[in-house]
Amino acid sequence: MTQPKSWLDIDPDSPFSINNIPFGIISTPDSPTPRPAIAIGNYALDLQAFTQHNGFSKLPDIKDLDKVFSTPTLNAFASLGRPTHKSVRNYLRNILLSNGPYPEILEQNPTLHPTLLIPLQNCTTHLPMSIKDYTDFYAGLHHAQTVGTLFRGPQNALQPNYKHLPVAYHGRASSIVVSGTPIKRPIGQILPQRATHPILSPSKKLDLELEIGCFLAHTTRLGERIPLPSTENHIFGFVLLNDWSARDIQAWEYIPLGPFNGKNFATTISPWVVLLDALEPFRTKGIANDVGVLSYLDEEGEEGFYDVRLGVRIGETEVCVTSARELIFSFGQMIAHHTVGGCPVSAGDLIGSGTISGVGVGEKGCLLERTENGKVEVELGNGERRLFLEDGDTVTLTGVCGERGGLVGFGECKGTIVKADDIS
Amino acid sequence: MTQPKSWLDIDPDSPFSINNIPFGIISTPDSPTPRPAIAIGNYALDLQAFTQHNGFSKLPDIKDLDKVFSTPTLNAFASLGRPTHKSVRNYLRNILLSNGPYPEILEQNPTLHPTLLIPLQNCTTHLPMSIKDYTDFYAGLHHAQTVGTLFRGPQNALQPNYKHLPVAYHGRASSIVVSGTPIKRPIGQILPQRATHPILSPSKKLDLELEIGCFLAHTTRLGERIPLPSTENHIFGFVLLNDWSARDIQAWEYIPLGPFNGKNFATTISPWVVLLDALEPFRTKGIANDVGVLSYLDEEGEEGFYDVRLGVRIGETEVCVTSARELIFSFGQMIAHHTVGGCPVSAGDLIGSGTISGVGVGEKGCLLERTENGKVEVELGNGERRLFLEDGDTVTLTGVCGERGGLVGFGECKGTIVKADDIS
Repeated sequence: MTQPKSWLDIDPDSPFSINNIPFGIISTPDSPTPRPAIAIGNYALDLQAFTQHNGFSKLPDIKDLDKVFSTPTLNAFASLGRPTHKSVRNYLRNILLSNGPYPEILEQNPTLHPTLLIPLQNCTTHLPMSIKDYTDFYAGLHHAQTVGTLFRGPQNALQPNYKHLPVAYHGRASSIVVSGTPIKRPIGQILPQRATHPILSPSKKLDLELEIGCFLAHTTRLGERIPLPSTENHIFGFVLLNDWSARDIQAWEYIPLGPFNGKNFATTISPWVVLLDALEPFRTKGIANDVGVLSYLDEEGEEGFYDVRLGVRIGETEVCVTSARELIFSFGQMIAHHTVGGCPVSAGDLIGSGTISGVGVGEKGCLLERTENGKVEVELGNGERRLFLEDGDTVTLTGVCGERGGLVGFGECKGTIVKADDIS
Repeated sequence: MTQPKSWLDIDPDSPFSINNIPFGIISTPDSPTPRPAIAIGNYALDLQAFTQHNGFSKLPDIKDLDKVFSTPTLNAFASLGRPTHKSVRNYLRNILLSNGPYPEILEQNPTLHPTLLIPLQNCTTHLPMSIKDYTDFYAGLHHAQTVGTLFRGPQNALQPNYKHLPVAYHGRASSIVVSGTPIKRPIGQILPQRATHPILSPSKKLDLELEIGCFLAHTTRLGERIPLPSTENHIFGFVLLNDWSARDIQAWEYIPLGPFNGKNFATTISPWVVLLDALEPFRTKGIANDVGVLSYLDEEGEEGFYDVRLGVRIGETEVCVTSARELIFSFGQMIAHHTVGGCPVSAGDLIGSGTISGVGVGEKGCLLERTENGKVEVELGNGERRLFLEDGDTVTLTGVCGERGGLVGFGECKGTIVKADDIS
């Protein structure tokens, strides 16, 4: 397939091809105030500066872009709604296309290039949205199956409710950080084997979790439901999400109310929000659900999933390759379930998919699965082996759709483990 | 004991005596913009108007009160820190005291009274803070014991972790509402008895939960711990909290990740924040903990609890009387545990105690306990009986300390059940 081309020189392996146009928040040494941008090839196009230079003059129907692109988050832009996201993304794509309709705006205005097009290596990226509530689902069937088998055996691996509803817990919004933020090993209560009393200790079972995160665009009222067919109008876009987990802290604390300090020390997301429209060409079905879900969750054969090729590296070694289609509930179903009882959502809410794993050994989205809870080592390329993460380890999640020359990717979601504080 | 007197005429049964001075957010028909106020007797003292009329002129050391009292929440005031809360509360108390030091400010300035002192019945109260993250603990030992016995028998009532750490889950901030907001019965997935497939239905086991909520004053950094001795500097004040619960939805969904739609449809709080300093005279010990907690949770005999007399009414019938001392972990211990792994907190975070119950039948802080999960009816005074809440029921939580003429109370935390939406 011939890919559309930009007049900008874009590496064919860039995740930020002309087919993508993801939105984020950047700052630069010259201009330290965080502001909206899109990523294109090796550049960020500064949307605040673009607006100030009348870049949107050929898109007169969309109001308030000067305002929404002068704020330090994407919440205001997200709130404008999906038709606006689509129009603005298409317009920016046209601005960047070879033989596009408006070359006078940027292509033929080279004096503007140094101001508007900033090399990504000179940008600091920030959390793309002011995150309100954060909910983490558990929709990775193979993950749930493998973890359930480890703890309860294959006959009881899945709980009776698992296929009937997208299981979830409310996560901690305050500890969500952007890719690159160092992750301090948490200390917490751990029950040693055969002990009856816990100790306070740095976690010895620090793990990653490979997930997709979904940002919501609109704020609803208390008591308002979002029916399944409307859910996609509420989706702003997607990021990679690493739900760092301390398995030993979690194991001792989680009964009966679920994960708490085992998860709330940090969650990392990738900085660029890939809009729903950019993923449209990669729609697919998820894992078939054989229980016959209730009608409010029935997608009736709709392709509500996306075939994003996902990967996990520890250091330079790829330890997992899987796909975002390995889920049994779509984000649409998650949103419909989340709001069925009237729980309001907000622009800037973040929803995690739950850990995504395939079936094979090389397709496990966390070390708990891969090492069978610390029993089977995973080899890293440099001769090192791991059961769980060690201080200094850098974990990188990747996600990409499409073909070389026209990739729609998320970039990297990265974090390096730093040693725990002294206990005193 | 002779109580100090105000020059204002205050009903001796008012929860808002001169000893209290709780802070909240009000609006009025004439002036619909929400703004800070204190409650005193039957009045709200409008702090925005008080500031505009130079009411704080005798408190020159505290800066920025004009700014913080011109915002629609108490977050900015809370962030000024505990010494400022104390100074401002003491100053306002002096302004309102008979024979106080500054009668010229308000007492002898009667033309200001109609502007600054607004009858509470003319005020609409709003959420006192912009709530960031919400965490609900489970520190009511008798509640945990009774509920555990109902589901697992007396031998296994408490989980092994229960006395070692304050068990908690992350709650839903978006559905927290102020007293008086109608509560729509949620619909959700419920597993009928002996069924293998769930149905979608309005909850038939809608319950209340009597709790104390604690607002935090300061924002901490990722990785920062709050040691137990510092926790009280992070507390802004307290409210009553009703953690409405749909027991049938919760029972089907909560394994393995905890409560979700069974709780996130609504949580009600009382509108007036009672500051820590107002509760100082009522310090007491909580329930003794016999396991020997780890040192980061060891209060070493400190009196970290408050003897607030709590009550629950359904309609006009009091169905529960207990005390806020019926907890096994203090708010200080909860905060120390919450942050031990480095989870950051924010000004405006809300922390719930968990359901507070005593030991006797008339001391149960929820209907699940009182009716033994829908088996034993509770009689209301008018000849009606309840197993769980019915449409039209009004639930009122109350909390008060001290003696008549000098009460330090929370006012009411109230909500009326309205019928579920049609399922379609």
